[in-house]
Amino acid sequence: MTDLYFVPAEEFRRILSLRDYKTELFSNCCRINTLYAIKRAGSGHIGSSFSSLDIVAWLFLNKLRLGQDVYFSSKGHDVPGFYAVATGLGILDFELIHRLRRLHGLPGHPDVLTPQIATNTGSLGMGISKAKGMVHANRLLGNDSKIYVLTGDGELQEGQFWESLPSAVNHHLHEITVIVDHNKLQSDTWVSKVSDLGDLESKFAAYGWAVGRCQGHDLAAFARVLTELEAIGDRPKIIIADTIKGKGVSFMEHTAMEPDQKLYRFHSGAPDDSTYTRALQELIEQVNRLLEQIGAQPLHLERVNIEPNPSLNDPQRLITAYSQALVKQGQKHPNLVVLDADLVLDCGLIPFSEKFPERFFECGIAEQDMISQAGGMALKGLLPIAHSFACFLSTRPNEQIYNNATEKTKIIYVGSLAGLLPGGPGHSHQSVRDISALGAVPGLIMLEPSCEQEVDLALDYYINKASGSCYLRLVSIPCEIPYQLPPDYSLESGKGVMLTNPAKTDGVIFGYGPILLPQAYYAAKILQQDHNLHLRVVNLPWLNCLDPHWLQSMIEGCSWIFTLDNHYLIGGQGDRIASVSAELGLSPFVKVKKFGLTSIPQCGQNHEVLKYHRLDAESLAADIANLYQI
Amino acid sequence: MTDLYFVPAEEFRRILSLRDYKTELFSNCCRINTLYAIKRAGSGHIGSSFSSLDIVAWLFLNKLRLGQDVYFSSKGHDVPGFYAVATGLGILDFELIHRLRRLHGLPGHPDVLTPQIATNTGSLGMGISKAKGMVHANRLLGNDSKIYVLTGDGELQEGQFWESLPSAVNHHLHEITVIVDHNKLQSDTWVSKVSDLGDLESKFAAYGWAVGRCQGHDLAAFARVLTELEAIGDRPKIIIADTIKGKGVSFMEHTAMEPDQKLYRFHSGAPDDSTYTRALQELIEQVNRLLEQIGAQPLHLERVNIEPNPSLNDPQRLITAYSQALVKQGQKHPNLVVLDADLVLDCGLIPFSEKFPERFFECGIAEQDMISQAGGMALKGLLPIAHSFACFLSTRPNEQIYNNATEKTKIIYVGSLAGLLPGGPGHSHQSVRDISALGAVPGLIMLEPSCEQEVDLALDYYINKASGSCYLRLVSIPCEIPYQLPPDYSLESGKGVMLTNPAKTDGVIFGYGPILLPQAYYAAKILQQDHNLHLRVVNLPWLNCLDPHWLQSMIEGCSWIFTLDNHYLIGGQGDRIASVSAELGLSPFVKVKKFGLTSIPQCGQNHEVLKYHRLDAESLAADIANLYQI
Repeated sequence: MTDLYFVPAEEFRRILSLRDYKTELFSNCCRINTLYAIKRAGSGHIGSSFSSLDIVAWLFLNKLRLGQDVYFSSKGHDVPGFYAVATGLGILDFELIHRLRRLHGLPGHPDVLTPQIATNTGSLGMGISKAKGMVHANRLLGNDSKIYVLTGDGELQEGQFWESLPSAVNHHLHEITVIVDHNKLQSDTWVSKVSDLGDLESKFAAYGWAVGRCQGHDLAAFARVLTELEAIGDRPKIIIADTIKGKGVSFMEHTAMEPDQKLYRFHSGAPDDSTYTRALQELIEQVNRLLEQIGAQPLHLERVNIEPNPSLNDPQRLITAYSQALVKQGQKHPNLVVLDADLVLDCGLIPFSEKFPERFFECGIAEQDMISQAGGMALKGLLPIAHSFACFLSTRPNEQIYNNATEKTKIIYVGSLAGLLPGGPGHSHQSVRDISALGAVPGLIMLEPSCEQEVDLALDYYINKASGSCYLRLVSIPCEIPYQLPPDYSLESGKGVMLTNPAKTDGVIFGYGPILLPQAYYAAKILQQDHNLHLRVVNLPWLNCLDPHWLQSMIEGCSWIFTLDNHYLIGGQGDRIASVSAELGLSPFVKVKKFGLTSIPQCGQNHEVLKYHRLDAESLAADIANLYQI
Repeated sequence: MTDLYFVPAEEFRRILSLRDYKTELFSNCCRINTLYAIKRAGSGHIGSSFSSLDIVAWLFLNKLRLGQDVYFSSKGHDVPGFYAVATGLGILDFELIHRLRRLHGLPGHPDVLTPQIATNTGSLGMGISKAKGMVHANRLLGNDSKIYVLTGDGELQEGQFWESLPSAVNHHLHEITVIVDHNKLQSDTWVSKVSDLGDLESKFAAYGWAVGRCQGHDLAAFARVLTELEAIGDRPKIIIADTIKGKGVSFMEHTAMEPDQKLYRFHSGAPDDSTYTRALQELIEQVNRLLEQIGAQPLHLERVNIEPNPSLNDPQRLITAYSQALVKQGQKHPNLVVLDADLVLDCGLIPFSEKFPERFFECGIAEQDMISQAGGMALKGLLPIAHSFACFLSTRPNEQIYNNATEKTKIIYVGSLAGLLPGGPGHSHQSVRDISALGAVPGLIMLEPSCEQEVDLALDYYINKASGSCYLRLVSIPCEIPYQLPPDYSLESGKGVMLTNPAKTDGVIFGYGPILLPQAYYAAKILQQDHNLHLRVVNLPWLNCLDPHWLQSMIEGCSWIFTLDNHYLIGGQGDRIASVSAELGLSPFVKVKKFGLTSIPQCGQNHEVLKYHRLDAESLAADIANLYQI
């Protein structure tokens, strides 16, 4: 049981009625509620919310014509800070602060379904392009509106950012003001170490933008620079705001990092209880100090008592397994090199990078560049393994992966955070389209391992048996695994393995991966116990190829074939199974039914999201039982 | 019958043995052979081959350590000039100059299967990233090698170019020298008008690169600048070479364009006979003038007599039909806006852009930026229609299209140059993966019209009936269409139309589009005449959705269902048909057989390529007849 505290709506109203220190007080109250929401959600981005909060609060309190001007964050992961501002101002239902990253609550990244959210962001680098489109529309439609876009600095590694700059000048898009939240740190580490941004002011000036720079927590300075830029007639404007990541809580501020410390600890994730309490105390003290100074009453906070989420029973961690397998293979293969796009921790690459620093390439948030670099390396005889989140890896460098494929070299692509879960970050991060987006790349082998053991087998297969390029789809959340692979199990192209084989068989259910295969397994149990229906459960890790003879043997004697995709229905494994079944020619009265996603994934806690999309064991069992009753 | 002339191998050997003017003479002889190869092929890029030829020739004659250093062009479409250099030097089989854009000849864009080609390019902006990968590999493997990369200037609009710059500085990749072929014109028009590059020298310097600039046809100046840059220790180098597009033939040089002339005429495509002859004469005269000056014999050319390709009989042109339909819809819908990515001519947008200039947005070679701009416009109430070649539109902004989809706005995407043909440009331009790459985007409707009439219907459906976003897959080549749509035909979601309905039915073949549907139509005729097999031919323009009841009615009484994809088999329409068939449950002895691409498309003349992939009527008929005999 944890006690959490938030600043209630009436306290925000009181602060907004003050004359002195209004913005400072408001910002810090927003920090308290940001911290609360993230702690309660169990995840979220504190560092970046805190670095941008002063500016966002100032814009809303002093600059924006509400309902007319537009503000949005291009990086998007600082949205908890924005929610605190919008709820604090009363322009977003205050009660939503209790529902960050919950179903029908506030998504982990911005979504236009939430009031006051102007556009969906969370995948980086799109902000200025979106703003340009808005300005063109406003001009055509005769709207008087200014657009303020906040960007990260790690985000400036994305090519689209630079791609979007020139035409804003050609079209004199003076309505746009971009603010770079220059907090010096990207997801993993220092921006300058990964890919130095160089002389930013000169760069922007060379692009023809009106450029200003100031300390980003000195709001008087910020206001002054903004006024100066506004005086410049017809050019788009950009302010480099030098900010502090984690600003407001001393030990979260990046300036408090040790000189030799590589990883910043508060980029994402929730603080533990004691860290939460320490941070909260600091913020409360700052607010109360100011309130005392102006003779106002100290801050009143409300307390909420939160049950911790039930912990998992001996879960398997596929990223850890991958991490170990990668080091093992790295020892055997001197030509193996590893590329990363600013997710060294999330992709499990720290052990490899420490053991083989000369074979580890941190490419930054620059997926297109990373993949074409991998292409160049492969042409010269290396075996590159390129990493990112599956949602970005399969889409951002989609053409670069195809271009590499046409060279018929061998490259391994590893997409983590694959599938519907975690549900907290929202649809920008839920990778449920990657099988489709890459499935037709000629010769590309795609596997999703269902447990730690299969991760090891998959990487071994890719490195030592596959002749061409491969895509590894890796689930990042810890999962309880109720099945075991047979002791003699090995990967054979297009063939899976039966996990349960009941004596009597009414149907077969194919699945893959540690999230949905357990659901299939439990659904089969429910069906047997409650409905006397007997289903084979088959693990098929091959996502885009299928052995027809093996399939025939698996569906023998079944009247229903069920498929289960941690992916949209279109282009998933279910399509492959259905398609090969049709090529085989089915026996009479055998039908295929595909389960998977049919709509954009919801944001929420994992069990909420699974249930919403009817992919949890209970829903699956109910829907399958229904089919037998028709 | 046309007489074409080329410089034979022995003349190159003579020129290479000269002491004076060797590079100049060699370059111009290469221009003669470039012109020859493109005229013979019927298409290719003259302007860009000519602007870069002096530099490429100079590098090979004076700089590169053959077999050790690497040169490649990032833009790639200037490869005919490179082929002329490599064949002229004798490092590529000379006889290949007669087989530009032919099966097993020289591809329209670079491919590593061709000797001396270092990497596949043709899709823009990947060059520096590839070079960086090569350098990292060389360093690890202990290779001493320099990498020279030529880029275009329109190409600098691609974000990946800028994305690739910073880390080359962080890693001190001094082995890389980039040469910008700054000929001031992109595919359609002036780079500065589309998206001004600003102060390029300042930009590159701000990125930390060592920068030089010179006139790109003054090779002494070029050599000087290169030497200066080489003296700068550990930084990657970039030379802005101010060149002339079409250099070497007075009337092809961009400097000869009229002040009010928008479109440059010699970017792609082959010159007509008289233009060819005039250009050839100029080049010969220049060569002979120099040869005379040094007292050498005039140039000996060889003549080839070429049969013109048979002309099509009353072909349909879908791009023209689209062009007209777009203007018609533009008149009705004031909120309709058009976006283009430097393909105004190829995408049929000139009429719209002239009629509604305030609603036309030329975004340049910046597909990601274009698509996110369209997103911003749609959020503000416009109906954006975004255009590019299908190969780029479906892949480069793949994530941006998905991001827009999650906002549930309505945007129409139009991908021209869709499918296997034309076969000349090669696989970078043959869009045979787009249905798969975008098919799972939630709510995205995908249609490929089979004739001019259906283009009009499709655009009307998208604009006036569809509630969500849409993708129009448009074939660009003129096609003879042997069928007619019924007079009362209209588009209904997931339903097609029978084009032939024989009294007796052995099977049904589903197809779409003006390239393969005629092949299906003729294949059915052959099967009827030669094999007494009777096939229904069905036009199904819906690529990613299918009405199960309609499908059932179409396959009624058939023992075989054939599908025909102008696309890879995976993720194409055939998968959709097979998958829905399996969901319906097939009758016994009904099988599905999918035809489509199973390997990377070949480059070649259209009939060659169709036949190679066994998608021409004769191959289809033979393969289908075989199935009935098993």
